[in-house]
Amino acid sequence: MIDVGIVGGSGYGAIELIRLLTHHQYVNIKYIFSHSKIDEPIKETFPHLSHLTHQYEALNSEQIDCDVVFFATPSNISKGLAPSLIERNIKVIDLSGDFRLGDRSVYKQFYGESAAPQEQLEKANYSIAEWSNIEQNHTQLVANPGCFPTATLLAIHPLVDQQIINNDSIIIDAKTGVSGAGRSLAQHVHYSEMNENFSAYAIGKHKHKPEIEQYISKLANENIKVVFTPHLVPMTRGILSTIYVKLNQHVTNEGLHAIFTEYYDDKPFVRIRDLGNYPKTKEVYGSNFCDIGIYVDEESQSAIIVSVIDNLVKGASGQAIQNLNLMYGWNENTGLTQTPVYP
Amino acid sequence: MIDVGIVGGSGYGAIELIRLLTHHQYVNIKYIFSHSKIDEPIKETFPHLSHLTHQYEALNSEQIDCDVVFFATPSNISKGLAPSLIERNIKVIDLSGDFRLGDRSVYKQFYGESAAPQEQLEKANYSIAEWSNIEQNHTQLVANPGCFPTATLLAIHPLVDQQIINNDSIIIDAKTGVSGAGRSLAQHVHYSEMNENFSAYAIGKHKHKPEIEQYISKLANENIKVVFTPHLVPMTRGILSTIYVKLNQHVTNEGLHAIFTEYYDDKPFVRIRDLGNYPKTKEVYGSNFCDIGIYVDEESQSAIIVSVIDNLVKGASGQAIQNLNLMYGWNENTGLTQTPVYP
Amino acid sequence: MIDVGIVGGSGYGAIELIRLLTHHQYVNIKYIFSHSKIDEPIKETFPHLSHLTHQYEALNSEQIDCDVVFFATPSNISKGLAPSLIERNIKVIDLSGDFRLGDRSVYKQFYGESAAPQEQLEKANYSIAEWSNIEQNHTQLVANPGCFPTATLLAIHPLVDQQIINNDSIIIDAKTGVSGAGRSLAQHVHYSEMNENFSAYAIGKHKHKPEIEQYISKLANENIKVVFTPHLVPMTRGILSTIYVKLNQHVTNEGLHAIFTEYYDDKPFVRIRDLGNYPKTKEVYGSNFCDIGIYVDEESQSAIIVSVIDNLVKGASGQAIQNLNLMYGWNENTGLTQTPVYP
Amino acid sequence: MIDVGIVGGSGYGAIELIRLLTHHQYVNIKYIFSHSKIDEPIKETFPHLSHLTHQYEALNSEQIDCDVVFFATPSNISKGLAPSLIERNIKVIDLSGDFRLGDRSVYKQFYGESAAPQEQLEKANYSIAEWSNIEQNHTQLVANPGCFPTATLLAIHPLVDQQIINNDSIIIDAKTGVSGAGRSLAQHVHYSEMNENFSAYAIGKHKHKPEIEQYISKLANENIKVVFTPHLVPMTRGILSTIYVKLNQHVTNEGLHAIFTEYYDDKPFVRIRDLGNYPKTKEVYGSNFCDIGIYVDEESQSAIIVSVIDNLVKGASGQAIQNLNLMYGWNENTGLTQTPVYP
Repeated sequence: MIDVGIVGGSGYGAIELIRLLTHHQYVNIKYIFSHSKIDEPIKETFPHLSHLTHQYEALNSEQIDCDVVFFATPSNISKGLAPSLIERNIKVIDLSGDFRLGDRSVYKQFYGESAAPQEQLEKANYSIAEWSNIEQNHTQLVANPGCFPTATLLAIHPLVDQQIINNDSIIIDAKTGVSGAGRSLAQHVHYSEMNENFSAYAIGKHKHKPEIEQYISKLANENIKVVFTPHLVPMTRGILSTIYVKLNQHVTNEGLHAIFTEYYDDKPFVRIRDLGNYPKTKEVYGSNFCDIGIYVDEESQSAIIVSVIDNLVKGASGQAIQNLNLMYGWNENTGLTQTPVYP
Repeated sequence: MIDVGIVGGSGYGAIELIRLLTHHQYVNIKYIFSHSKIDEPIKETFPHLSHLTHQYEALNSEQIDCDVVFFATPSNISKGLAPSLIERNIKVIDLSGDFRLGDRSVYKQFYGESAAPQEQLEKANYSIAEWSNIEQNHTQLVANPGCFPTATLLAIHPLVDQQIINNDSIIIDAKTGVSGAGRSLAQHVHYSEMNENFSAYAIGKHKHKPEIEQYISKLANENIKVVFTPHLVPMTRGILSTIYVKLNQHVTNEGLHAIFTEYYDDKPFVRIRDLGNYPKTKEVYGSNFCDIGIYVDEESQSAIIVSVIDNLVKGASGQAIQNLNLMYGWNENTGLTQTPVYP
Repeated sequence: MIDVGIVGGSGYGAIELIRLLTHHQYVNIKYIFSHSKIDEPIKETFPHLSHLTHQYEALNSEQIDCDVVFFATPSNISKGLAPSLIERNIKVIDLSGDFRLGDRSVYKQFYGESAAPQEQLEKANYSIAEWSNIEQNHTQLVANPGCFPTATLLAIHPLVDQQIINNDSIIIDAKTGVSGAGRSLAQHVHYSEMNENFSAYAIGKHKHKPEIEQYISKLANENIKVVFTPHLVPMTRGILSTIYVKLNQHVTNEGLHAIFTEYYDDKPFVRIRDLGNYPKTKEVYGSNFCDIGIYVDEESQSAIIVSVIDNLVKGASGQAIQNLNLMYGWNENTGLTQTPVYP
Repeated sequence: MIDVGIVGGSGYGAIELIRLLTHHQYVNIKYIFSHSKIDEPIKETFPHLSHLTHQYEALNSEQIDCDVVFFATPSNISKGLAPSLIERNIKVIDLSGDFRLGDRSVYKQFYGESAAPQEQLEKANYSIAEWSNIEQNHTQLVANPGCFPTATLLAIHPLVDQQIINNDSIIIDAKTGVSGAGRSLAQHVHYSEMNENFSAYAIGKHKHKPEIEQYISKLANENIKVVFTPHLVPMTRGILSTIYVKLNQHVTNEGLHAIFTEYYDDKPFVRIRDLGNYPKTKEVYGSNFCDIGIYVDEESQSAIIVSVIDNLVKGASGQAIQNLNLMYGWNENTGLTQTPVYP
């Protein structure tokens, strides 16, 4: 049994961690931190947790005593706090973007702030859990991937790894539920204006674009750029990523399906759909699954991959717990066996 | 052709006035006022109006030159500005609550602010348009009813007027779409928390309770209290009011239906449904209709009335225009003939 | 470990049982029956269950070998099949309405079909789990309560039991998410017509009215009638029941709150909210909780109780499992500790 | 004043025609045909039209007497009925797909039925109204474009016409509200399963793919294929089409914006957004507008165009009326001046 703390306790990432960790047999939630709600019972802000007795606390990095701290904070916070925790041998799993990008100038460009020091960035382990290089008992700092990158990279990884696509042809048309925008108020996510409304946003400028590019560039060992367009869907949870790539060789639908099936054969959270069957966001709602459907368009020699995740689970808190399990050598799905909530 | 101005131009009441008045053959929108957006083109805040060239202006009561001013403001604003307009012979239609309640102490209790001076309140004409006493060419100040009261009073009026119910038995269980909460940001109407969520609120404390009581007390010539519970529905537009009353005499379903049909026979915006048919909010979406269904429960000698309106049309801007038509003696439905948008 | 079978396997009640039972440490799902989908893998109909390998089977009451059978069927099915199972010492938990009403003529009136034989009805144990008289190891047939009755009776039970209300004054204004209408197609629950739409239905005629009346009549030992109006909310899950009662004595808000708190002090799934705090449906989404808020309107000497449940969990499959736990003497919350999914 | 008839009167296309034509000063709706509802008042099926007195009638092509007939029918119906009407000098505007495709083998492939005779197809005028070649007083048969093609072709037309893109690079990622699936019941548009759910469908197989290809091939005078992926959004109305193209020359954001602005300068229903501003579906809700936003990604030398329409208005009934106006030489926006319903 380990003790954990959660920073950013009044956000959606934190309450999803709480929902999931409550069922994790090896984890005790010792601290929930929120500097704006110190000493308030968590049930005041979140009545759905009325059965819990936790109170928010102030984070004092020097005094807390636990094994792991999760940062479920906006960007630009963990980079200041994580190093002192790591020094005290407290492991850190960062759900924010602070440690995801290795290139400080790219961080500056997309996040608009100074990046963490280079040596900190180099200690961080960016971990899509299915393709992780977390070292059990050694990894101290995990950069938990973003929601769009998770849905997208699980779909692209086999294609790039197999070298069957033109790497300069990747177009990602991604769609997310509104919880991805977080709990902070804003006009465009005000109910009356977001409801019954569908839109594109941040075209060419989204923080997750360089994150995707960094991963596949490293995998392909060449500098790859992608076109990435995020959209906002009038629903709370779920991401669907539609990915278009040009094939550099003749591949059949059956052939591509076999590749994906083999790649994910031993990965419990990735479910490859049969040919002709495409996943829907609700089919993974509340769960850690990533479901993938594939289609080869022989006419244009391109492939279309459709992947779905719950942005708050596999796209954030669920994958963070999956990474925690890898860090401790526990069964990968410990605490993550929730069946999707359907309908 | 008259010139009108709209105060509170960045709220939902104002843009609904603009939507409807654009089709009113006798009205020119001369001014749209908003103190927070002076000189901004309206299309910046509301891109759905990109075909319009209006700019927001500052309201200067002494200088504006028009025939009518609509206040689509939060409470506590029109009471300070309307008197000087009326003095200059500019008619005022107030969509806020400032002039609705005749009893200043009740205003203070429910609105938490000081009411307008008594002599101003006495000049105001509270006008459910179907039962209005607006005097053509004379009425200078209209207190446009609230959304819940409009849906409720159209349903209750015949019952109280016919003296067939126990006046102390009225229970109003009302449900509104989220646009009724306005455009200001708040956590409970943040999309991710309002979506897929249904709740009661302000039980016993809602501003529309005394407004309903005042109207029916005057109609019955006795002091009547009601039980009123508002609820918030995860949808943008629409109010459905379910009203429970005890009958003080034997009334059949057919008998009650005949009463309602007769009362609203010559009222173009009130549609009484056949027995066994209950209206749904979407069946009046975007229109000025109020649809009413009735049921007599012989077992308990009570009646259940279900009425629906679009809260932004018949519950606000549409009724304001209907009242404008009455003030000028135009056909009641001028500018208000929109068919409900369905589905 | 016991083996269970589920009849009606292609409906929402069944898949919710599957979702929840997957996490029940003492239960193995041995059979999933569906006469329309025999031999089909369940994942074809429900891709969210793609990680499961179950196939639908035909129900043969004479041959199946298990401990408990759940009926998650429409009405008029279990009454024909349950008796032969019970004879073979297979326990039955019926989520349909077939065994809920003791009076066969009332069943006939509200369900439009002939009721089960009287001797069968007398064997059935109608069990609101918090107030259950299930006898461990003895009860063979449980009539699992309906969704509206569960939300309503948990709120009314203390009031009737304490004899502080006029029993002829009960008005229940209930609202349900659309999954309560089941998986069968119908025009009024076609997405484009149900979305952004709120309505009342089945006024005075709903099957759950006599179910509520039967329970409280037995509790009060007198014949009680209620006014019950169900409404349909454009959301998938959740019931909110707003209940109006006349108090027969002076009761303060604090006094009523104390009564509810005491009644539910040792009931893990009922959470009484603090005064002034009313529960929202999303705050119990996906969980077995029933949250209750109370308000005393001193002006009218009435009380307003607001209760919420997830109609598919506490209102159906969750309570069925809770009743199963009571039948076997397991901890009441075995398999039911899911935290609400929020947002 | 002309008399019109509407075939397929119980579908969404028909009721949207009724909503819009009610405000058209030159049109009288003389007939509403529905073979399944003969002699029924329209308000029984559509209570939102309770103020109308129309009754459904049987279509008898030989006997009806009117100027124009709209077909708002599923495919495979108008092709059998339109010719006899045209022979009798009744103009036809067909909202179905029967006369859209000039190549009968393509129709067969995508619609699964035999196409209309070639000579009929050649008489049909496929009319994106902004780029129409309808001849006033001469055109007898209009093939009204599909919803996805309308949103897409208005966005692509300037690019292809200007010859600034690689014509083999076009990828269309389109998203539609659920009303596009029509009024017929189906499991995937059952409220509980469609709500909070986003999905791709009919990848590579949608009927609108060849329709788009035919139009741009003709415009470019070469055979062009596109990649087209439709998605279903949990909302009722609205289409957003995100279009990716490779530029064949250096084009700046400002340059591309100028091209679009000039192309649509005199088209009242197409609103080109300022750079950096992308349209949302709700901003055209209930109106005949098509709003377009553009972005040039200099990194990949590609352009991303985002266009939105209301699928039932500009994507069906609104454009049909716009085409009617062209056929009679009336002002293009007669009957179509509705402001978008927002929020």
